[in-house]
Amino acid sequence: MLETRIIVEKKPKFKNPICIVGLPGIGNIGRIAVGYMVHELKAKKFAELYSPYFFPFVMINNNMIHTLRNEFYYYKGKKNDLILLIGDCQTYDPKGHYEVAGKILEFLKGVGCKQIITVGGFGTGQVSEKPTVYGSVTENEMVSRYKKMGIDFDISGQIGTIVGASGLLVGLSKLYGIRGLVLLGETTGFPIITDPTAAEAVLNILKKILDMKFDLSKLDEKVKAMHDFIRKLESIQKQAMEQLGKEKKADDLKYIG
Amino acid sequence: MLETRIIVEKKPKFKNPICIVGLPGIGNIGRIAVGYMVHELKAKKFAELYSPYFFPFVMINNNMIHTLRNEFYYYKGKKNDLILLIGDCQTYDPKGHYEVAGKILEFLKGVGCKQIITVGGFGTGQVSEKPTVYGSVTENEMVSRYKKMGIDFDISGQIGTIVGASGLLVGLSKLYGIRGLVLLGETTGFPIITDPTAAEAVLNILKKILDMKFDLSKLDEKVKAMHDFIRKLESIQKQAMEQLGKEKKADDLKYIG
Amino acid sequence: MLETRIIVEKKPKFKNPICIVGLPGIGNIGRIAVGYMVHELKAKKFAELYSPYFFPFVMINNNMIHTLRNEFYYYKGKKNDLILLIGDCQTYDPKGHYEVAGKILEFLKGVGCKQIITVGGFGTGQVSEKPTVYGSVTENEMVSRYKKMGIDFDISGQIGTIVGASGLLVGLSKLYGIRGLVLLGETTGFPIITDPTAAEAVLNILKKILDMKFDLSKLDEKVKAMHDFIRKLESIQKQAMEQLGKEKKADDLKYIG
Amino acid sequence: MLETRIIVEKKPKFKNPICIVGLPGIGNIGRIAVGYMVHELKAKKFAELYSPYFFPFVMINNNMIHTLRNEFYYYKGKKNDLILLIGDCQTYDPKGHYEVAGKILEFLKGVGCKQIITVGGFGTGQVSEKPTVYGSVTENEMVSRYKKMGIDFDISGQIGTIVGASGLLVGLSKLYGIRGLVLLGETTGFPIITDPTAAEAVLNILKKILDMKFDLSKLDEKVKAMHDFIRKLESIQKQAMEQLGKEKKADDLKYIG
Repeated sequence: MLETRIIVEKKPKFKNPICIVGLPGIGNIGRIAVGYMVHELKAKKFAELYSPYFFPFVMINNNMIHTLRNEFYYYKGKKNDLILLIGDCQTYDPKGHYEVAGKILEFLKGVGCKQIITVGGFGTGQVSEKPTVYGSVTENEMVSRYKKMGIDFDISGQIGTIVGASGLLVGLSKLYGIRGLVLLGETTGFPIITDPTAAEAVLNILKKILDMKFDLSKLDEKVKAMHDFIRKLESIQKQAMEQLGKEKKADDLKYIG
Repeated sequence: MLETRIIVEKKPKFKNPICIVGLPGIGNIGRIAVGYMVHELKAKKFAELYSPYFFPFVMINNNMIHTLRNEFYYYKGKKNDLILLIGDCQTYDPKGHYEVAGKILEFLKGVGCKQIITVGGFGTGQVSEKPTVYGSVTENEMVSRYKKMGIDFDISGQIGTIVGASGLLVGLSKLYGIRGLVLLGETTGFPIITDPTAAEAVLNILKKILDMKFDLSKLDEKVKAMHDFIRKLESIQKQAMEQLGKEKKADDLKYIG
Repeated sequence: MLETRIIVEKKPKFKNPICIVGLPGIGNIGRIAVGYMVHELKAKKFAELYSPYFFPFVMINNNMIHTLRNEFYYYKGKKNDLILLIGDCQTYDPKGHYEVAGKILEFLKGVGCKQIITVGGFGTGQVSEKPTVYGSVTENEMVSRYKKMGIDFDISGQIGTIVGASGLLVGLSKLYGIRGLVLLGETTGFPIITDPTAAEAVLNILKKILDMKFDLSKLDEKVKAMHDFIRKLESIQKQAMEQLGKEKKADDLKYIG
Repeated sequence: MLETRIIVEKKPKFKNPICIVGLPGIGNIGRIAVGYMVHELKAKKFAELYSPYFFPFVMINNNMIHTLRNEFYYYKGKKNDLILLIGDCQTYDPKGHYEVAGKILEFLKGVGCKQIITVGGFGTGQVSEKPTVYGSVTENEMVSRYKKMGIDFDISGQIGTIVGASGLLVGLSKLYGIRGLVLLGETTGFPIITDPTAAEAVLNILKKILDMKFDLSKLDEKVKAMHDFIRKLESIQKQAMEQLGKEKKADDLKYIG
């Protein structure tokens, strides 16, 4: 596999689709929030993304080989269909971030998607009981509309950059004729793995943006289940990295990568 | 050479071919086991794989230049032809693992292969006189069939991941219409180079899976011969890395790779 | 995005265009000088360059997502049209330097550009009140012409190499049928961010080379404004790198890159 | 520039061409020996090779920008035409070695070349007044022929590997229908830059292999001249690496490569 590949299992026809992206990151807020939407909306998987820029190992899960991937789900909505993108990981490689983001945007463009919303976290170092949801957009006219829904756009001073998929997918969206919004849930940023409170705050904003209703009462319970899986995945990644290190004599190879 | 290349020397027609992969790794179990099969079955080489992601050096062996490679052998069986893949090395590069695995699977798909079995080792830190052979598969229905042959699938708790070719070849096989099985021979994982006991355990399982008979009595002797070659290769790799280091002023280049 | 891309917004027809390049570097002299020309000449943007070899993050600037890029501006001159290339960053990757330079030169060749002038800094470690402008060219016959304009070509002894875009764009220009000149403003090279004095020295030379008049009296004021933006960008880059480090467990990943 | 490129300036028709390669390496023996042949035979340049895997900087040499490159020269011989390949550098990147070697071999195949001889050094740690010339080949039948000319093939025990271009060009030559010979001049391997004695030993062997006569009496003088240039290039590379380090904040970037 030379390049990031998206394997399409079904080809649904989409009506004004909006893509919501929740990949692992600070507080795993995107992953939890969009993962919950997939579950609560009973969204259906229709495509998978594999990348040579993901870690070169597989996981074993209930006897079965699980290959690291991102997954595209869809939900047929009233006004807009939703494409929900979740996944096991982001790439570990700076160039890989551009490749993966480019492949996703190309794919979304191909299925007629004109809008992307990525969900991430903004680590403040402090615990907030009522986390703010910060936003940033690709077009200025979007600001006033989203401000009314409770998104805080006053962040230039505080948040300088967004690293990785959440930022780059929106940052490059314009090149593919797609408009973008980043939603960042305020979170401590401490190395705790999941922050359901921030995820809930983002989901409440998403409900307004999408003009949809879905139940959030099962969030805590679902987050707990996801939490265990995510913790396993993360600890496994750490183990695998160490194993890689031992096998390949990492110290000798450092200058070779 | 910009990409991994497979050079085909002969083009045999295969009857329901199954590919068995034994590349260097923990305990070199795959390499020993499949290398022994190549020898014992008098399998014939029909293709070679070269990769820009292998180490950039050549070995000198009996006056001759030996370029690092993987080799495809075939054996005409009764029910199934076998494609045996062995080699000098795996790639040292995470992205390279995906490229090499992808090229191999593409090639196998092209020759009509529908099943791949990779052989590796699982390091427990303990010496076992009767090593267990662990397994993992791409499709759930395969589990019950292989359990009967003595493969232990109860490993999620113990083995989190499989790093490198053994894992990735099976993990990506589905994308190429191939079903996969990983066999992991229980071994200490200490930096001893070869573990013939674990290799024998895996070979006994392979005989059942393939419904084939071949003599294992010469294994110890063959492993000893291979052991010397492998030890030379490994020590040469280490030397070469150091030489690379000195020539290229590795310390200055570390941040450049 | 697999490769560096240049997105063309308008396609002006150019009359004997000369490209002047000012990207971030030592003393940010090129960036300030050419940035000032863009402003003073009211040059118009007509293309943008994005690269997978730029940092994998976006900036937030006045509510809006800003993706790292280089920008092409044009100015319709009397004898020569000007193509002014400025940008947020250079690549952090050695191979990326070649890719970005190659893409720019290919693009310039495509719009009929036959000459490129890159502007950089030469750090002497000393403060100079009247900085020398050093030069180097791709064709020997250019030396005498430019010497008359006050460029010092006597630098082989002092300046051994030019690292990055300023050097490589000129060094590879010949392969694209373009002749090149590097201008290096003498500067301290201390980690201060901008050196308007050296930029002014270079601009005075550029006025002679291009046989153009433009006012330099607003340079200090503009440099101050740019200085703030550049400092923000640089400090943000530093933050982002640290954030990347924390998120991706940089220490574990070092040997993986 | 995305890939290594060979720019052909003239297209001579070759009669049974043999390519002799002398690139920088241990003792710079190949570079000196083949560089001397270029000079002594008044060979003519007909092509240049540039690579994104070379260092991303240019040198300044007598007012002019010098871009790192390899150069192809030709000499019309009686029985065989010669293609002489010399250059400023090898790549610093393992994958780059494969790309550059592959491009060279593809090019040689294209001009009808069926044989390649690479010249390198073998560092023994000891000073030898009459250095041995070691050899290794791609085809066993070549050994006896070359043994008669004084090449020592008894090296498996001593020389395990050949790192970089000298080895890989021969190691991959078979894939391009080219047969290969590596000549390694015995040298101390201490960080002195040039070893004319070993170069002379190799040149004496080359004269026999090629059945040619050329004067070696000016070797010392020429090596001295080359020595100065090479030392400048090497010291410049070191400086440039440090400069790169400072500019790009190497320490922060280490895990990014």
